[in-house]
Amino acid sequence: MAVSAEILEALRGISTATLTIQMLKSHGLRTRAVADVRPISPTNCRFVGIASTLRYVPAREDLWHEAVLDSPANPTSDLIETMPPGNVLVIDMGGSSAGGALGDILVARLIARGVAGVVADGPMRDAGPLGTMSLAIWSKGCTAPPSFCGLLAVDRDVTVGCGGVLVRPGDVIVADEDGPIVIPQHLAEELARAGLEQERMEAWIKARVEAGASTRGLYPPGDAALAEYRAAVDS
Amino acid sequence: MAVSAEILEALRGISTATLTIQMLKSHGLRTRAVADVRPISPTNCRFVGIASTLRYVPAREDLWHEAVLDSPANPTSDLIETMPPGNVLVIDMGGSSAGGALGDILVARLIARGVAGVVADGPMRDAGPLGTMSLAIWSKGCTAPPSFCGLLAVDRDVTVGCGGVLVRPGDVIVADEDGPIVIPQHLAEELARAGLEQERMEAWIKARVEAGASTRGLYPPGDAALAEYRAAVDS
Amino acid sequence: MAVSAEILEALRGISTATLTIQMLKSHGLRTRAVADVRPISPTNCRFVGIASTLRYVPAREDLWHEAVLDSPANPTSDLIETMPPGNVLVIDMGGSSAGGALGDILVARLIARGVAGVVADGPMRDAGPLGTMSLAIWSKGCTAPPSFCGLLAVDRDVTVGCGGVLVRPGDVIVADEDGPIVIPQHLAEELARAGLEQERMEAWIKARVEAGASTRGLYPPGDAALAEYRAAVDS
Amino acid sequence: MAVSAEILEALRGISTATLTIQMLKSHGLRTRAVADVRPISPTNCRFVGIASTLRYVPAREDLWHEAVLDSPANPTSDLIETMPPGNVLVIDMGGSSAGGALGDILVARLIARGVAGVVADGPMRDAGPLGTMSLAIWSKGCTAPPSFCGLLAVDRDVTVGCGGVLVRPGDVIVADEDGPIVIPQHLAEELARAGLEQERMEAWIKARVEAGASTRGLYPPGDAALAEYRAAVDS
Amino acid sequence: MAVSAEILEALRGISTATLTIQMLKSHGLRTRAVADVRPISPTNCRFVGIASTLRYVPAREDLWHEAVLDSPANPTSDLIETMPPGNVLVIDMGGSSAGGALGDILVARLIARGVAGVVADGPMRDAGPLGTMSLAIWSKGCTAPPSFCGLLAVDRDVTVGCGGVLVRPGDVIVADEDGPIVIPQHLAEELARAGLEQERMEAWIKARVEAGASTRGLYPPGDAALAEYRAAVDS
Amino acid sequence: MAVSAEILEALRGISTATLTIQMLKSHGLRTRAVADVRPISPTNCRFVGIASTLRYVPAREDLWHEAVLDSPANPTSDLIETMPPGNVLVIDMGGSSAGGALGDILVARLIARGVAGVVADGPMRDAGPLGTMSLAIWSKGCTAPPSFCGLLAVDRDVTVGCGGVLVRPGDVIVADEDGPIVIPQHLAEELARAGLEQERMEAWIKARVEAGASTRGLYPPGDAALAEYRAAVDS
Repeated sequence: MAVSAEILEALRGISTATLTIQMLKSHGLRTRAVADVRPISPTNCRFVGIASTLRYVPAREDLWHEAVLDSPANPTSDLIETMPPGNVLVIDMGGSSAGGALGDILVARLIARGVAGVVADGPMRDAGPLGTMSLAIWSKGCTAPPSFCGLLAVDRDVTVGCGGVLVRPGDVIVADEDGPIVIPQHLAEELARAGLEQERMEAWIKARVEAGASTRGLYPPGDAALAEYRAAVDS
Repeated sequence: MAVSAEILEALRGISTATLTIQMLKSHGLRTRAVADVRPISPTNCRFVGIASTLRYVPAREDLWHEAVLDSPANPTSDLIETMPPGNVLVIDMGGSSAGGALGDILVARLIARGVAGVVADGPMRDAGPLGTMSLAIWSKGCTAPPSFCGLLAVDRDVTVGCGGVLVRPGDVIVADEDGPIVIPQHLAEELARAGLEQERMEAWIKARVEAGASTRGLYPPGDAALAEYRAAVDS
Repeated sequence: MAVSAEILEALRGISTATLTIQMLKSHGLRTRAVADVRPISPTNCRFVGIASTLRYVPAREDLWHEAVLDSPANPTSDLIETMPPGNVLVIDMGGSSAGGALGDILVARLIARGVAGVVADGPMRDAGPLGTMSLAIWSKGCTAPPSFCGLLAVDRDVTVGCGGVLVRPGDVIVADEDGPIVIPQHLAEELARAGLEQERMEAWIKARVEAGASTRGLYPPGDAALAEYRAAVDS
Repeated sequence: MAVSAEILEALRGISTATLTIQMLKSHGLRTRAVADVRPISPTNCRFVGIASTLRYVPAREDLWHEAVLDSPANPTSDLIETMPPGNVLVIDMGGSSAGGALGDILVARLIARGVAGVVADGPMRDAGPLGTMSLAIWSKGCTAPPSFCGLLAVDRDVTVGCGGVLVRPGDVIVADEDGPIVIPQHLAEELARAGLEQERMEAWIKARVEAGASTRGLYPPGDAALAEYRAAVDS
Repeated sequence: MAVSAEILEALRGISTATLTIQMLKSHGLRTRAVADVRPISPTNCRFVGIASTLRYVPAREDLWHEAVLDSPANPTSDLIETMPPGNVLVIDMGGSSAGGALGDILVARLIARGVAGVVADGPMRDAGPLGTMSLAIWSKGCTAPPSFCGLLAVDRDVTVGCGGVLVRPGDVIVADEDGPIVIPQHLAEELARAGLEQERMEAWIKARVEAGASTRGLYPPGDAALAEYRAAVDS
Repeated sequence: MAVSAEILEALRGISTATLTIQMLKSHGLRTRAVADVRPISPTNCRFVGIASTLRYVPAREDLWHEAVLDSPANPTSDLIETMPPGNVLVIDMGGSSAGGALGDILVARLIARGVAGVVADGPMRDAGPLGTMSLAIWSKGCTAPPSFCGLLAVDRDVTVGCGGVLVRPGDVIVADEDGPIVIPQHLAEELARAGLEQERMEAWIKARVEAGASTRGLYPPGDAALAEYRAAVDS
């Protein structure tokens, strides 16, 4: 069952640091942070949305006819035109930096279609214009050559790997300054609830620490600190 | 159209060094050699066959039920039981060394089914037994943990990347001491013919060099050397 | 024949993304973007100029007398004092980060001599001052140790590799937010012309996309879009 | 409590592939295989023993007096002279290949002292002699420079990382053709028992596969296969 | 003998570029710059202080009880609560990016305790808050998962390696825009003196270069330039 | 002055492990071992000879005419035909594995010309034939594509870097099972003398250790051991 707009909204208020702790502690999940990506614009790096996926493989020099955007073999245009508004485009480039997946024209179209963000384990291109456009993008930076210089798009909405993380269409992507993480679809609701509670308690702890308290017995909170916290939030 | 047994047989007599030169010179193909793999047994590393493909993505710790071999979600058993005898199993592990794709029991089954060879951009396991079994395997060596320690098999007979090379089901894999290369299906016949001719000429050149000739004018052959060669092969 | 000031001026108006597409489509050139470099200052990263080259090799601890700037064996000072104003200094450091090639004093001299920019596949040093100086530099960032900590300058104005790209003295370097690229000398004029035309068409396409058009049939432009574009530019 | 000789003897009969599966399935341990090491001699790579550890850090050029073997600051000689016979020497070199940890003289002494094996995430030296000596060694191969060229030994019998694996003094190291793995001390007994049972069942399965059986329903064994296996081993 | 506050204050006025040159020229030290780290905030990257060290090793999934901050086995809290104000926290993470060493709560406590800076060869977490807090941090950026996702803290105030550099408790860490460097304790006084003199001379040289002088005979200064410099500073 | 045949002959009897220790202890040279290379045939890996060098840079796809062996721009044939018998061919490939530098025909010619060995920081090709030919080669293994697939030969007998080591034409290359090392020309005589003495003493030490002696006081030898050794060699 798809993740509701309410849950996505709740996740927007929880940091990826908190969500990864929850996934590790409650479910033993250690591989949920997309590695080796950075935001095109450091001040425009946050989004929450459901994953739509695109899969690239290494290119072959004679496959021009399949690499062009208007080829029926290339799933990119169809994906861009049909992915639900609010979704996040997750691109599996196999970690290759041979060419940029999206330039300013495709990003302009993604914006027009209401896409929430992009995560790719390879580069984009047109860094100049992209830096001033509104779409938040996590990638391996930008490079001048086009994607078909070394990559071929072959599939959409299949299970992919991105930056060492398994991503299934329908999973929830949350990105903030610590980077993008991937929440399995069936855990989104539980995490929205548990994460919010952790955020609340840590805010209380941090205020205490900033006021001069030692972290001993406070972080993680011992019995006394927990009692004090509960008294505080109940009052 | 599938590559015929006659063409596969002809390719068996041509080195991968010769075939990559032909693909580069005649078709501008530079990315046809699978990178960073080595044979389990250096004396058992040669094969020719049509590619069947298996695709892995990074694992998620809670997906045990899909990772086990007898899960309907895992395409491995089906692939092993149904891939045509004489084919080569090409495994896209995304370059990960987190676990070994095949151990001695699955390799025993591949041998029973007549598979020609294996190419994987990750490791195998059970190196001890594998070193004495008859199947030729190019991989990233061996490691003790099973594949589901870090990988999940999700697809079969789709276009994959393996060691930086695009591989399509139906392509021809040729492996010798220089490693495995991938020949696009539609070029197999042309390469079988051109490669054989190049092998013949280079054997003639090498004999001349071993007899004391300088490579100048001989390798690559100038007009005089070409005339001499043609006279020799025509006689 | 050297590239004219007019051509350099024209290239200034074309993005590296456009230029790499032209080199790939028209000449099959895939390896023209210098890899793994970033600007010292993100807002000061653009330049166009003809390449002058400097070649480093790994250092040997006892070669102090050749490593110092005032050694006759060190080509750096000569290069800096004699390279034509407007040229770009391209430094082949073999990808090593063992020491910084240029500090603030040499950069001050490069500015005084009118050099257009620097591209190096290793680091600079004196990041603090460099960040406020006017010379645009693409490198592997900055590090405190001097170049002779691990590198030795041995040659100038020879063919070099820089970030995986062949660079010949006389080639044209173009750098913008997507990074520096290298244009073979004999292609500069053709690219200046073809690139300008591509930029014009893509600006028209992007305006259409931003106005709500789908990229289907528009990017890349089909026959109808091309006709429309030509009508628009002819009017 | 230290692992008994009986348990070590039992572990000798179980492959590292089996042991890693047990640690993963029963305890969720995924990081137990030492990565990126190979045997000095491929035919001399098996051992079982309790870990004694040595810790290196990067060297500083002026610390000669602490780097020499006879310095009181260097724990190597003490460790070699006092580690219990039958133990395995595990060396944390931080993955550095700057110098070789052990040459033929120290290896001769380790043999004389009855050490069972060596695992290091850096290189050895004196590959020629080492290749003919009886000690089994997993390392990053061999290099000519001595360890103090780039490394400094600082600690013994502390918790270390080796090839990405946490190793505590007292843990059990098992090495076979798939490489060395690290068994937490408190799991050794359980693994010796469970591993033996898995080995037995897989031998039965493999014999069936070699006799022509499909792996379907057999590997992993379904209910019918399990019943059949139990009947076979009970008979 | 500990480095005095006067020496630390003097070192604050000397660039890391100057200090590494002094360590190389006078003592043959080449490995003093911490590699592959960057500041959380580029405008908050400078500090000088004495090193306190923390050592991590790879984690084991079942060692939760030792990984938590309030475990007696975890030295982190003790270190944070007892390290002298003005010291720099140096964290040896073995180069791993598996989890972030410090989040906003611990950083808040470090600030409260007057810590001068942090250097780690792995990531932090909570990049958003950290970017606005006053503590200068050099690390491998930020990632969402906590340190115990892949690392275990085992030791404090021992000799460690950090970014390829040997660091001993008591060494002096100096960080500026070129990154952090490590000064052996016994060299701090000598470097404070020699570095200051080099800075003075290079400022004079740079002013000359900016005024139009060639670097020939001036950088490095020949006899005439030295005489001129001495006359200038004596006047 | 070129290194004499007598010195080369003496170096043949000294291990690279001994020679690197001498260069480190007496001259502070740490970077003399060529990194990341392995022998084509492990049993054919030893040679001593004077370096002749060849320099490659990254290829450009349209430079066919310069990449072919018979182009006047390609220095390879000239080098092979004119390098002195007994010399070692050192190839700087910039660490690239894009194509193999030498195949069986050129190796046959090198053998005919009496070349002593090859060291390259990239791959060879034709591994099958090369494995049975008499020339000892250290490289990055073998790959099928030709060098011009990704590399261009541009220079001969210039100073190069190979596997992180500065190599000058005229330096002495010594290779044994620990790999190839590079001896600066002016140190060859001194090393031949000092290395021989070290070998002698270490043989005496090793015999003592194999006979049961502890390495304490013996390795490195203390005063008593030195006296005993001198008495033994003097007798």
